[in-house]
Amino acid sequence: MTDTQPTAAVLLIGDELLSGRTRDINLQQIAEFLAPLGIPVKETRIVSDEQDAIVAAVNALRAAYTYVFTTGGIGPTHDDITADAIAAAFGVEISEHPDAVILLTERYAAMETEFTPARRRMTRVPHGASLIANPVSGAPGFQTGNVFTLAGVPSIVRGMLGDIAHRLQTGTVVHALTLRSKGLREGDIAEPLGALAQDYPELSIGSYPWFRAMNDSGVQIVIRGSDEALLAEAEAKVVVLIRSKGFEPVRMEDPAA
Amino acid sequence: MTDTQPTAAVLLIGDELLSGRTRDINLQQIAEFLAPLGIPVKETRIVSDEQDAIVAAVNALRAAYTYVFTTGGIGPTHDDITADAIAAAFGVEISEHPDAVILLTERYAAMETEFTPARRRMTRVPHGASLIANPVSGAPGFQTGNVFTLAGVPSIVRGMLGDIAHRLQTGTVVHALTLRSKGLREGDIAEPLGALAQDYPELSIGSYPWFRAMNDSGVQIVIRGSDEALLAEAEAKVVVLIRSKGFEPVRMEDPAA
Repeated sequence: MTDTQPTAAVLLIGDELLSGRTRDINLQQIAEFLAPLGIPVKETRIVSDEQDAIVAAVNALRAAYTYVFTTGGIGPTHDDITADAIAAAFGVEISEHPDAVILLTERYAAMETEFTPARRRMTRVPHGASLIANPVSGAPGFQTGNVFTLAGVPSIVRGMLGDIAHRLQTGTVVHALTLRSKGLREGDIAEPLGALAQDYPELSIGSYPWFRAMNDSGVQIVIRGSDEALLAEAEAKVVVLIRSKGFEPVRMEDPAA
Repeated sequence: MTDTQPTAAVLLIGDELLSGRTRDINLQQIAEFLAPLGIPVKETRIVSDEQDAIVAAVNALRAAYTYVFTTGGIGPTHDDITADAIAAAFGVEISEHPDAVILLTERYAAMETEFTPARRRMTRVPHGASLIANPVSGAPGFQTGNVFTLAGVPSIVRGMLGDIAHRLQTGTVVHALTLRSKGLREGDIAEPLGALAQDYPELSIGSYPWFRAMNDSGVQIVIRGSDEALLAEAEAKVVVLIRSKGFEPVRMEDPAA
């Protein structure tokens, strides 16, 4: 990776995530969508449904990363304040987008559902933003500069991502492979693994222990890099290292990371 | 809640979380631990295993919130850099803590496991920090000022939280209740719900739709507040509102949020 590699940040909006009541899945969806495009997620923030918090996070992240993806807070209820917060962050006005009004007018007519003022709120986007299609439930997301504002419901986020790839500058794809060794302890391999990591400065070698119970613990070694030959070379050395401690690593499928 | 209510931020450290390969559970554990103590989590960040990123996040969060909880990066391998990053954030030196050395010397002797230099790395804490007991795997966490540095492995985090409650200034407990209505759509109740939210400024009323499939969608209304009588009053009104749309809400167990 070079400094010109595009980067991304994810901003998850919602008290429900911070309280722990809802466990986020959108970061994973977005990261797995971006990985094959060569755009690593470098930072994620979760903030509450408060305009000041959203504005501060959007402005910090859009200045620091190539792309920002926000999730949550664009529905019809009083606590859906993300569109207004994005407009405030960019210092622009917000109003109903004519294309969104047409889209939702037709959709609710087809569903024989009243297009209430609350539902019309979902057509409001910051001035200068372009719409992001929502094939799942109709109400669009929107792109404001380098900030993509998506829904919070995971199935809708998944749908909206389909209208985003073509807008992104792609980077060098980072491949990753995982070697999972049940029973191994990090301390058993830490020194030689550290030396190996120093031998391959172009790669990133991470060690992630798990410990669920006395007989269900182990270590996953994750090797990341854009050069697949180098990756394979380092993998072979890590396998030798793990076998030297009496463990047999299992290689996990991992097309891109 | 008043402005003197203690607040918390959570800083999750690790490329594995950002890549989406590992789905975090520690935010949920920490938030559910803090809720009954009256300490709401107001912000969460996830950063990569890079010292600059960790230092910047620690310093931003410790200045803005009463308490900060970090997870990850305190193991024995080369990519475990959190202790050094915390020391750098506070501008203090770092070295082996004598109590931690005694603790791990005894533990590894009992396990008949070599206390390698890599394992000794886990005794290094920032100067001025106090240790946090780790009943699961021995190697301690540590508290530096208002920053609590915990492991990344969820079972170990759970263990360490047992040595933290007594260090915290507690606040007013915020209660929450959830009314779950399958089939309901947010747009059906948005206006009267917004009016109701305005009638109860002491409460926070959130609306969270789900949409997993055409026949598996609905809305959860979450009402939060410290005054349980007021909460019950608002709940009754939301129930009437939902019933007026032909749906029967299910009340979810939710002792504290």
